[in-house]
Amino acid sequence: MNHFLVLATGGETRVLLTLFIMLFAAKLLGELFERLRQPAVAGEILAGVIIGPSLLGWAAPSEITGLLAEIGVIFLLFLVGLETKPAAIFKVGKQAAIVAVLGVVAPFLGGWLLMKAWGGTSIEALFVGTAMVATSVGITARVLSGMGLLDAPTARIILGAAVIDDILGLLVLAIVSSMAAGTINYFEILTTAGLAIGFTVFIALVGAPVVTRLVPQVTRMRTGHGIFIFGLVLCLGLSVAAAYIGVAAIIGAFLAGMALAEAAEDDSKMHRHMNGVTEFLVPFFLVNIGMQLRLDVFRSWPVIVLCVLVTLVAIATKFLGCGLGAINLGTRRAAQVGMGMVPRGEVGIIVAQIGLSLAVIGAELYGVVLFMAVATTLIAPPFLKWFYACEAAARKEIGPPDAGGIVASGDFCKIG
Amino acid sequence: MNHFLVLATGGETRVLLTLFIMLFAAKLLGELFERLRQPAVAGEILAGVIIGPSLLGWAAPSEITGLLAEIGVIFLLFLVGLETKPAAIFKVGKQAAIVAVLGVVAPFLGGWLLMKAWGGTSIEALFVGTAMVATSVGITARVLSGMGLLDAPTARIILGAAVIDDILGLLVLAIVSSMAAGTINYFEILTTAGLAIGFTVFIALVGAPVVTRLVPQVTRMRTGHGIFIFGLVLCLGLSVAAAYIGVAAIIGAFLAGMALAEAAEDDSKMHRHMNGVTEFLVPFFLVNIGMQLRLDVFRSWPVIVLCVLVTLVAIATKFLGCGLGAINLGTRRAAQVGMGMVPRGEVGIIVAQIGLSLAVIGAELYGVVLFMAVATTLIAPPFLKWFYACEAAARKEIGPPDAGGIVASGDFCKIG
Repeated sequence: MNHFLVLATGGETRVLLTLFIMLFAAKLLGELFERLRQPAVAGEILAGVIIGPSLLGWAAPSEITGLLAEIGVIFLLFLVGLETKPAAIFKVGKQAAIVAVLGVVAPFLGGWLLMKAWGGTSIEALFVGTAMVATSVGITARVLSGMGLLDAPTARIILGAAVIDDILGLLVLAIVSSMAAGTINYFEILTTAGLAIGFTVFIALVGAPVVTRLVPQVTRMRTGHGIFIFGLVLCLGLSVAAAYIGVAAIIGAFLAGMALAEAAEDDSKMHRHMNGVTEFLVPFFLVNIGMQLRLDVFRSWPVIVLCVLVTLVAIATKFLGCGLGAINLGTRRAAQVGMGMVPRGEVGIIVAQIGLSLAVIGAELYGVVLFMAVATTLIAPPFLKWFYACEAAARKEIGPPDAGGIVASGDFCKIG
Repeated sequence: MNHFLVLATGGETRVLLTLFIMLFAAKLLGELFERLRQPAVAGEILAGVIIGPSLLGWAAPSEITGLLAEIGVIFLLFLVGLETKPAAIFKVGKQAAIVAVLGVVAPFLGGWLLMKAWGGTSIEALFVGTAMVATSVGITARVLSGMGLLDAPTARIILGAAVIDDILGLLVLAIVSSMAAGTINYFEILTTAGLAIGFTVFIALVGAPVVTRLVPQVTRMRTGHGIFIFGLVLCLGLSVAAAYIGVAAIIGAFLAGMALAEAAEDDSKMHRHMNGVTEFLVPFFLVNIGMQLRLDVFRSWPVIVLCVLVTLVAIATKFLGCGLGAINLGTRRAAQVGMGMVPRGEVGIIVAQIGLSLAVIGAELYGVVLFMAVATTLIAPPFLKWFYACEAAARKEIGPPDAGGIVASGDFCKIG
């Protein structure tokens, strides 16, 4: 390589190489998993584990891979929102709230008790509990959208519960973090709560009518692709607003998509454009999660045992907590909801990073929490595919809901 | 904003805000320019000037905006390649070579003479000449693809000439840089030349047949969107390979697109997916060019005068040099080719950065070259729109080439 060009473009070329490796590995393992009748999502995360610092060391998480991952999951949730009309979520609101609350309480208590029993400090126990509260809805959304089941009744419950879960998780994190810092600022926590709830409710209620009014003007834009560009700007704008308020950026993206869902319903061109963006960017989100895994902290048996215990408790408490919240729908659907909330992914990783930066948890416990976040994310997709097998089969036989599929698949798969 | 979350996600949120501002400003000014019957491209670059450090200071070029810009122009050139069959380029190969050579010699001499006359050192004169050689084909490609004229005969000449121009520019840069360093390493320069030419010729000749054989297998992939994903991987892969060899990454992307052009010809779904990616990312490329402009070096009259002179010479030499190379096609088409090669954009900026990092040019001259790179990029699009007005009108009346439009628009607009 010409060494004068390296001066100016060497860093960029290396980053491009990293991105190429990430994309190629993701698509390769995704395809392999599909052929083994496993979900591609798990393959793409595993690709990150393999090429990441734990194993091959061909790529490592950086500010840039983190940003592409973030944009990827933002547009993924936007796309999921696009296929979710507000009314469909409001209808399952109460059920989603019960699922979310139980799915916060059970893992928090589970994590706290486990760490206490293990002999951890109080603050360590609180932080592990908090990390277990997190839910990475992107993983489940990706699996369900890949199966064409985003409009399944339990999918709506999972999406609604994830929004509420994120707000509750934010509050738990604010409280535990301020306890770690020594003083609890009740005013700040109340402000956080008020802002987060206010933002979400406001966009959920007012977003769709406002957007629906804007769309006719947008389609008259000269630049072409009007709605798509409007969607991009709206999605990024609400993501940033959500992040500044303290909610996850993906919640803003999801609400943006939902606000546009009715207006863009018949715009297949816009859906394809958006699909192109997510197909390109979502692999970075998945691979980036896998790359976070660091196996080098597992040098002693106690750490390995703790890893397995934390992961098992994380899965059991979320699965049972959320499942209990949906038990009135029958055990099969309760299992779908419970498993849909199991992945902790990037949200669990962020909580772990906060714990590390506040010096509340050490490098070893950080590694344990990262393991739990990645492992729950890898384990859920195959089970989800299994639990939704009936709906997927019904969808294939009877067709999509607008051909009468909703009723059919709903009835067909009710008992199980 | 919750200050505990800031700890972990504050940096990312700020970056997201920057991206939102860039996208929003680009689309706003693009739309405004369209309404004023000016090309959107110029509006998007101007958006970068306005929000950039020179004026409002709302956003600044960084490693991340640079990377998104790079990915944006890579996929833009890939998309342009997708609409360019290899045979169409080979047919104009000789003409493109003449255009490229004259378009390298004239600006280099012009820049060198101007700096000598201005009283610059020899190495300064050589570097300004080198910066004037650069051509940013992305700008012209974006204007022409927006007008639906990528298949116009002169568009093919411009694309072919840009590939050759890039290789020649690489060699000029290698020679001048080694002169600046004190010793000319002939072996390295010859290796650079051999690799660059070998890579380009190899992919141009062998790419299409190999890819056409692979595509049937790719469409059988389980993950869906097979060709699109194959295209993404191929595009990134060849871009990285090109960059490591020393050619611009966009040349690799263009060749990747061209190799896939025949196989993906009828795949409108893939084109839409790809369109979605470029519509999202290309604004970052354009805004990032505009943001490079620094007006703070222009504190004295001599610098301002030099800026204007360098820009005028850059425009005149490229326009006349490349135009002369295509004069056999008539003055109107010669003017199209000449103006199509005028934008220096990101390539001129990279040369300036190399000059600065080698301490060959100072901060002031660096600012002058940046001004030239941005100004040529802003000036060309309106002229291009004007020079191609006849083809655009003919395309509207007679339809695309597969409906007989090529012959018609070719004949219809020949004299002028």
